[in-house]
Amino acid sequence: MGFHVDSETGRLRRVVLHRPGLELKRLTPSNKDDLLFDDVLWVRRAQAEHDAFASVLRERGVAVHLFGDLLAETLSVPEARTLVLDQVFDDREFGPLATDHLRSVFEALPSERLAEALVGGMTKREYLDEHPEPVSIRFHVMELDEFLLNPLPNHLFTRDTSAWIYDGVSINAMRWQARRRETVHFEAIYRHHPLFRREDFHIWSQGHADYPSTIEGGDVLVIGNGAVLIGMSERTTPQAVEMIARKLFATGSARTVVALDMPKRRATMHLDTVMTMVDRDTFTQYAGLGMLRSYTITPGGAGRLDVADHPPEHMHRAIAAALDLPEIRVLTATQDVHAAEREQWDDGCNVLAVEPGVVVAYERNTTTNTHLRKQGVEVIEIRGNELGRGRGGPRCMSCPVERDPV
Amino acid sequence: MGFHVDSETGRLRRVVLHRPGLELKRLTPSNKDDLLFDDVLWVRRAQAEHDAFASVLRERGVAVHLFGDLLAETLSVPEARTLVLDQVFDDREFGPLATDHLRSVFEALPSERLAEALVGGMTKREYLDEHPEPVSIRFHVMELDEFLLNPLPNHLFTRDTSAWIYDGVSINAMRWQARRRETVHFEAIYRHHPLFRREDFHIWSQGHADYPSTIEGGDVLVIGNGAVLIGMSERTTPQAVEMIARKLFATGSARTVVALDMPKRRATMHLDTVMTMVDRDTFTQYAGLGMLRSYTITPGGAGRLDVADHPPEHMHRAIAAALDLPEIRVLTATQDVHAAEREQWDDGCNVLAVEPGVVVAYERNTTTNTHLRKQGVEVIEIRGNELGRGRGGPRCMSCPVERDPV
Amino acid sequence: MGFHVDSETGRLRRVVLHRPGLELKRLTPSNKDDLLFDDVLWVRRAQAEHDAFASVLRERGVAVHLFGDLLAETLSVPEARTLVLDQVFDDREFGPLATDHLRSVFEALPSERLAEALVGGMTKREYLDEHPEPVSIRFHVMELDEFLLNPLPNHLFTRDTSAWIYDGVSINAMRWQARRRETVHFEAIYRHHPLFRREDFHIWSQGHADYPSTIEGGDVLVIGNGAVLIGMSERTTPQAVEMIARKLFATGSARTVVALDMPKRRATMHLDTVMTMVDRDTFTQYAGLGMLRSYTITPGGAGRLDVADHPPEHMHRAIAAALDLPEIRVLTATQDVHAAEREQWDDGCNVLAVEPGVVVAYERNTTTNTHLRKQGVEVIEIRGNELGRGRGGPRCMSCPVERDPV
Amino acid sequence: MGFHVDSETGRLRRVVLHRPGLELKRLTPSNKDDLLFDDVLWVRRAQAEHDAFASVLRERGVAVHLFGDLLAETLSVPEARTLVLDQVFDDREFGPLATDHLRSVFEALPSERLAEALVGGMTKREYLDEHPEPVSIRFHVMELDEFLLNPLPNHLFTRDTSAWIYDGVSINAMRWQARRRETVHFEAIYRHHPLFRREDFHIWSQGHADYPSTIEGGDVLVIGNGAVLIGMSERTTPQAVEMIARKLFATGSARTVVALDMPKRRATMHLDTVMTMVDRDTFTQYAGLGMLRSYTITPGGAGRLDVADHPPEHMHRAIAAALDLPEIRVLTATQDVHAAEREQWDDGCNVLAVEPGVVVAYERNTTTNTHLRKQGVEVIEIRGNELGRGRGGPRCMSCPVERDPV
Repeated sequence: MGFHVDSETGRLRRVVLHRPGLELKRLTPSNKDDLLFDDVLWVRRAQAEHDAFASVLRERGVAVHLFGDLLAETLSVPEARTLVLDQVFDDREFGPLATDHLRSVFEALPSERLAEALVGGMTKREYLDEHPEPVSIRFHVMELDEFLLNPLPNHLFTRDTSAWIYDGVSINAMRWQARRRETVHFEAIYRHHPLFRREDFHIWSQGHADYPSTIEGGDVLVIGNGAVLIGMSERTTPQAVEMIARKLFATGSARTVVALDMPKRRATMHLDTVMTMVDRDTFTQYAGLGMLRSYTITPGGAGRLDVADHPPEHMHRAIAAALDLPEIRVLTATQDVHAAEREQWDDGCNVLAVEPGVVVAYERNTTTNTHLRKQGVEVIEIRGNELGRGRGGPRCMSCPVERDPV
Repeated sequence: MGFHVDSETGRLRRVVLHRPGLELKRLTPSNKDDLLFDDVLWVRRAQAEHDAFASVLRERGVAVHLFGDLLAETLSVPEARTLVLDQVFDDREFGPLATDHLRSVFEALPSERLAEALVGGMTKREYLDEHPEPVSIRFHVMELDEFLLNPLPNHLFTRDTSAWIYDGVSINAMRWQARRRETVHFEAIYRHHPLFRREDFHIWSQGHADYPSTIEGGDVLVIGNGAVLIGMSERTTPQAVEMIARKLFATGSARTVVALDMPKRRATMHLDTVMTMVDRDTFTQYAGLGMLRSYTITPGGAGRLDVADHPPEHMHRAIAAALDLPEIRVLTATQDVHAAEREQWDDGCNVLAVEPGVVVAYERNTTTNTHLRKQGVEVIEIRGNELGRGRGGPRCMSCPVERDPV
Repeated sequence: MGFHVDSETGRLRRVVLHRPGLELKRLTPSNKDDLLFDDVLWVRRAQAEHDAFASVLRERGVAVHLFGDLLAETLSVPEARTLVLDQVFDDREFGPLATDHLRSVFEALPSERLAEALVGGMTKREYLDEHPEPVSIRFHVMELDEFLLNPLPNHLFTRDTSAWIYDGVSINAMRWQARRRETVHFEAIYRHHPLFRREDFHIWSQGHADYPSTIEGGDVLVIGNGAVLIGMSERTTPQAVEMIARKLFATGSARTVVALDMPKRRATMHLDTVMTMVDRDTFTQYAGLGMLRSYTITPGGAGRLDVADHPPEHMHRAIAAALDLPEIRVLTATQDVHAAEREQWDDGCNVLAVEPGVVVAYERNTTTNTHLRKQGVEVIEIRGNELGRGRGGPRCMSCPVERDPV
Repeated sequence: MGFHVDSETGRLRRVVLHRPGLELKRLTPSNKDDLLFDDVLWVRRAQAEHDAFASVLRERGVAVHLFGDLLAETLSVPEARTLVLDQVFDDREFGPLATDHLRSVFEALPSERLAEALVGGMTKREYLDEHPEPVSIRFHVMELDEFLLNPLPNHLFTRDTSAWIYDGVSINAMRWQARRRETVHFEAIYRHHPLFRREDFHIWSQGHADYPSTIEGGDVLVIGNGAVLIGMSERTTPQAVEMIARKLFATGSARTVVALDMPKRRATMHLDTVMTMVDRDTFTQYAGLGMLRSYTITPGGAGRLDVADHPPEHMHRAIAAALDLPEIRVLTATQDVHAAEREQWDDGCNVLAVEPGVVVAYERNTTTNTHLRKQGVEVIEIRGNELGRGRGGPRCMSCPVERDPV
């Protein structure tokens, strides 16, 4: 089939989304911050919004795979099931007295229920509703409504956990504890799901084993022309940029990596929350981002890397050079600083291109959307009243696995 | 006309709402916490949701006054204008060099624009777009996008700033800085607006002059039978309860005040976020609230008060006694603790009765709404996807000024 | 006698200190942050360190008044006692049921015990050990070990609450709640204590009535030549600078005020934590402070003020101009940024001059002290292992009321 | 030689301390919280206090080893040097471009300087003073005064990183990032230092490889009679308790483990901050601790464990039972809650016994010390004005490696 992502805005052919489920019902005012959400969601409405998002993509000819289905199908493969359960049920987490006991309970679940439990989590109370209590201090000291297995609400943002870059995929070591268990799910899918297991593609990273060299897909833009643009953010480290550059150059899959030195804070958690691509030479950028120091990495001889660094004012020039273009076009709506900050927060920049010049965006960012339209970009609006509460837009919620070059 | 609120669930005849405006556009991720909001709102959509809320009330025969209109009309009265501007433009806030200068600029505004500026605030940049810079260090040290006059986004919650209790109104000293300037607006309206100025009603408190004896309307339930139920919360102090009890008893307007010792935290900021009345003897209550210590206050001789205190387990009994009922009915939907916490957060309990057994509620709290219906309560649902982000529901967003007894 | 402070480094003749007492025993890990301390102190040792500080001053011929004595003596004057108790026992704080009851208990205390209770605070438990419980919800809801009257541990820093500037004193509105009650104590002392009441001096401000136009003495340097240097910090507002400039100019007591636009944060809470004067033309300054925007304020005609503003790089030039000097000398020890930050934190800059070129400093800031000595300044070292935990040095802990010009 | 620790209060024969050095000079107001300190220390004074502590122990016949010496001597052993540098210089931390380059620089240091750099850390600026800059984005994006290698100020608390329990030592996986690099230093010492390498003792844990099954020595009390008392705290997990119990029982080194379910917060970070042993049957306990749920773990058949759980009120009884005593004696000074909280904060309970009934304590906790003396305990006081700022007392600062039974 040939999975590959050759650009940010070429025709999108295949994507992985995750339909919100049990894991989002777990969010409460008390646990949301630890789980990296700013607010709780009305899940039924979020599902409807997400269904509409998937429909828009299907109508544009994109094949949509739902992560939940992929995971359940993968867990029917014994090696995949072992891979996942080995990582989840670890003595060092559950203690020598309870680990095997708990694992055997999960082992016995049918794949669909196991997938739901792994993503949606399980409380001690839920466990005890169906199973006896193990002799275990680790288990005993927990409160009844505490999570025995934490939910993974950030699976919604399929963009981050794995990222396809040209003819391979990076299965990422995630920055925050709340997302670490996501990685092994994608590892299992890419290695064992029928859709992927016989395909030929590179794997650019080693999953959680790379920690603390973390990288998240929201920071990675496959800008085309053999170039990759990576934000070094709160979540993506410079060492991970170096590592992936080396691998991409070793196979000849890419020729240039441009790394941006971003502010390290939640509001600009990923590059794609402040800057995305809408056409072959065109970006949308948050007014408050400013210009950033950048580094151009190219292959040196003998597996080494050459690094050229640029002052902030040359940021756009460095990107253009990587694209072999005389310049890039950067679209930023004119609005007051408060309004601009609001639309950035609401993922105004976080658009997903389905083909050059055609993007999916949240309807609520009216100023940004109007500006894009005036500049000739076709904007397909979707509702995100609930979805947007997790601070992620259409780009965050999609993992392209097949996209044409431009 | 005879303004008076004689119960929580008797037929609602007249109410003050505030349609969201400029002040909510001011909310940003950076300032929202200081302004007591958990998220930013899409204002156009919030307005639509609010318009629908007002329509529902009008269809039920309720006269709806919009606070913005009342304020603008009030500011046409010279004494009202002076009352407000005297409080806003204070040397101690703006300094001796700028205060008169700034005041004269606002003084010159027509009433509608003045009302909008007082509620929506003004940045230094906006000021300088139309007016010269005063010689003032206070003014000079500000950043261009800093607020010269802060916006008052919490005016949305008209319930809190003033509260009608039987035949009078409490114009409240507010707990947090972000809401203090709201008080003088209501003071001006009740004293000078044509609708109110010739009417005969009591004023139970002295506005901001009562600070730090703060009380907010969300903590005050006029439960009927000459009784008032008040939550002593993060925002309402025991000393304010004592003060208002004394005044209510002095005029014979009330015979009993029951005070509840609530947890002092944002999640349960007001009593009506965890407990409201849906019928003459029926309350809806958040599962996680538990039982609270309570105090029954009754008139002693010679202006004194008698206080009886009750252990937590007698909370419902104390309320029933104040209503001269053998017992009250308390409705709490059965759901797991995470779901219950979510619906409390989303104002599941914060319903507004329009007549006995008929309440307006946010549609998103499906479990609570279904439970109420099963218990015979008619639930009129409204959208609150945007409105609810301020942590306030239909009760918070309404200030009844005329309501029948039950 | 003629109280006046004509410089920062002229011979120091009379000073008010506060010997640590009960109020510092109240500090705990739980309440210290609210009370503005970073750590708890060993009070007996702090007293010994403070006694040694007082001795050093006395040996240099400085008359030392202890605040505790002044307050107790003042409270023997009926009008002073009334002034203080009126402000402390307010209905809005203690409620209509308890206020008179509590006040009468304190009213009955002899002056020494009253002074100790006002400064050291009192818990509900301590109150109940000696007095009956009033019928009061406000009182009843308190925990037994909660403070009925909060302690005032920051009285240790006598510099801040009142500040003598040339021939008058500013009795200050304090920025934080934890220090507000300090002000009325100094108001009572300056108005009613025998030492002051017949003296002729100006009062530059109106105490707490000026709030929120706050100013604290740590931000005020009387640099001589009719000039005053004021830091606009976390705690001192530009409006207060304007107000005091107007008063100082009206009496001719000063001719120039230079205001510095400081960072607003705890680490640089007052100007004297980063910059003090050690000789007629010499300052010690924290390496990490950098240069600040400054404003020179001079009398305009007719009670108006002229304001000239200067870019950061002219800060030292603006101060020199106010002193009619061609330039000032600024001493900053060379050390790495971590060490410099540590010594600033430990009040390395917060020295108290007893005459030109002779300063009292904490011994622990060895690099700064050595540097000052090498530059010809005599440094008298005192221990501050305990005292320094409140983030204040010799200057913070002293309120000069008589000091010569240089 | 036979290293073993058979009790908490038997004659202490050999101990490892760490004399404060460069790593504590690194503490600043900005980084102290991340480095788990509440305040900065005056290092020269802290060294003097620490020297006095070591002298007291030597005078009592205790052999004192300084960790800094042990580490430097260990690093002269090539395998030890490799073990440490392998763990410190990891691609995933420093990136593929800089890791080898940096490692070779450290590899070239003589052992004393290497030991100092590993413990004291190194800034980018210090590195560049002596070495050329590598071509590395990871290195390039750092600020000049940022730490290339973080300092390890918590090495001061030798108690925590490794803990001798009867005839073996637990080399611990530490809870917080700031202490993780400490572990490998002790691993190297115990495996390769001449003092230890030929000795015969058990190793109860696998160092950092056990993470997240963390345990810290401050939570471990070797109470004698084959029993161990372990606090499950903010830093010590129930799974680690299970793991170590299994190992201790397997060799017959212990017969009982009693685990206490402590509050999880910094103020009670380790069991020995609230409870230590002062004599064979006597403990000193913080008044504010209250009673805790406890678990008695004993060997079941076939490598399994038996667990008996006790309600809070039986905590002391469970400990007594493990000691085969009818009851234990628990000493708690009577003082008000504020004073008790202060002395707990200042490590009032954190005493180190040198023989039964003879303990070393900080002088500042006068109430606790007086109480212990009245109960017949000999208290040797040491200064801890500086040392105590790290929230650790004599027990925290000592790692006994040889102690007799009682």
